[in-house]
Amino acid sequence: MTGLLTVVGLGPGDERWLTPAAAHAVAEATDLVGYGPYLDRTPERPGQRRHASDNRVEVDRARLALEIAAAGGRVTVVSGGDPGVFAMAAAVFEALEGGDPAWRSLDIRVEPGVTAMLAAAAQVGAPLGGDFCALSLSDNLKPWEVIEARLRAALAADFVIALYNPISRARPWQLGRALDIAGALRAPATPVILARAVGRADERVRIVTLGTADPGAADMATLVMIGASTTRLIERPGGGNPFVYTPRSYGAGP
Amino acid sequence: MTGLLTVVGLGPGDERWLTPAAAHAVAEATDLVGYGPYLDRTPERPGQRRHASDNRVEVDRARLALEIAAAGGRVTVVSGGDPGVFAMAAAVFEALEGGDPAWRSLDIRVEPGVTAMLAAAAQVGAPLGGDFCALSLSDNLKPWEVIEARLRAALAADFVIALYNPISRARPWQLGRALDIAGALRAPATPVILARAVGRADERVRIVTLGTADPGAADMATLVMIGASTTRLIERPGGGNPFVYTPRSYGAGP
Repeated sequence: MTGLLTVVGLGPGDERWLTPAAAHAVAEATDLVGYGPYLDRTPERPGQRRHASDNRVEVDRARLALEIAAAGGRVTVVSGGDPGVFAMAAAVFEALEGGDPAWRSLDIRVEPGVTAMLAAAAQVGAPLGGDFCALSLSDNLKPWEVIEARLRAALAADFVIALYNPISRARPWQLGRALDIAGALRAPATPVILARAVGRADERVRIVTLGTADPGAADMATLVMIGASTTRLIERPGGGNPFVYTPRSYGAGP
Repeated sequence: MTGLLTVVGLGPGDERWLTPAAAHAVAEATDLVGYGPYLDRTPERPGQRRHASDNRVEVDRARLALEIAAAGGRVTVVSGGDPGVFAMAAAVFEALEGGDPAWRSLDIRVEPGVTAMLAAAAQVGAPLGGDFCALSLSDNLKPWEVIEARLRAALAADFVIALYNPISRARPWQLGRALDIAGALRAPATPVILARAVGRADERVRIVTLGTADPGAADMATLVMIGASTTRLIERPGGGNPFVYTPRSYGAGP
């Protein structure tokens, strides 16, 4: 089989965070496959086919991409952020494992990207300066009990916690529940970052505390980050958001 | 104060993973500050000053950068990977918090990058497709007891685990101990990825199992990843490394 399938991440939404490797894979593709709003971020090219889908059929989209590659196409599957972090790469490998064995001979590549938590962290300082974890609050594909057990473990071990997929119309209560659990295990003054649409025109980044964090202030495009016990603020003269950072040393202030 | 300090990550080592924003901050700086091998990756420019240091004086390096910015310079502090993940950004904010209060008026920015675990994951498939955590095994700045407690929590909650700073001449036993702890809590067949120098000329990526992983096969430049209970291999015809991925669904095969 001569086809090529590359899974890329476009980063958080601004071209200055798009890697040359991902841009190249988008430019060279005969076919682009992805969720419509991500495809809309890529420039139209004559002769290049675009296969847009909604955001709830990842494995179907992955199968389509594999079929096109098996027919000899150079397919690029487009994700936001990093394709390996709660995005399309795992769906492609699920489709590969469950699909035509001949697909395993295809040239399949993944190009990393800047995932939302790294961009959100950079906007406010260095909150991921210590150990951290990334947890999806979506219970579409795993039981809520697993999510809650992971959250409790991460809180008890004092990881900084990045919450992906915090809330949606179909999942309205999960973020509130997660913040309640965190509030019982960490101090009310713990910094919480609500980073919406980082790098896009409608970016909005708020720094609040665990004691006052309002789940209603987050939406599907928000990355929520809960600080560790060591996460600190540095206020700035003249107002504006403070810097937020987690020192490298554990239990020691500067 | 008119100076500018930007902390950037160059990514894992290949220019195709260097973001335009980081490249721009390197090109526009009057002064570059960083660990020698990272500065060596940036092109020499006439008139641009380069302040190279060894890798054990992060806070001194950060203070120097702040002093240059306070004197009106456009300073770029250069890290590998992402500057916010076990790299220079936290050191800059530590130096800022403990330093001259006037420094807080400086324009200080962080530009995200592709951190080692994302590049390593992309090289083998999608092992970070589920919830995951990033843990530094260096006990230079935090007690080993904290590291071990975090490792045990992450293992018990079935996170995929990315281990940064796994081993060095001065820290020879920590990785072996971590793999022993993991081996007591996860199956011997659990995939373990040893990803050395991803994106560089001396890249070497090995996929082994927890039961056979040899800590001596890792060095300072290696990112070690321990799969979750759901992390799977897809063998490929014709040999070569299998793909490694963690399905999005928990507890369900394809």
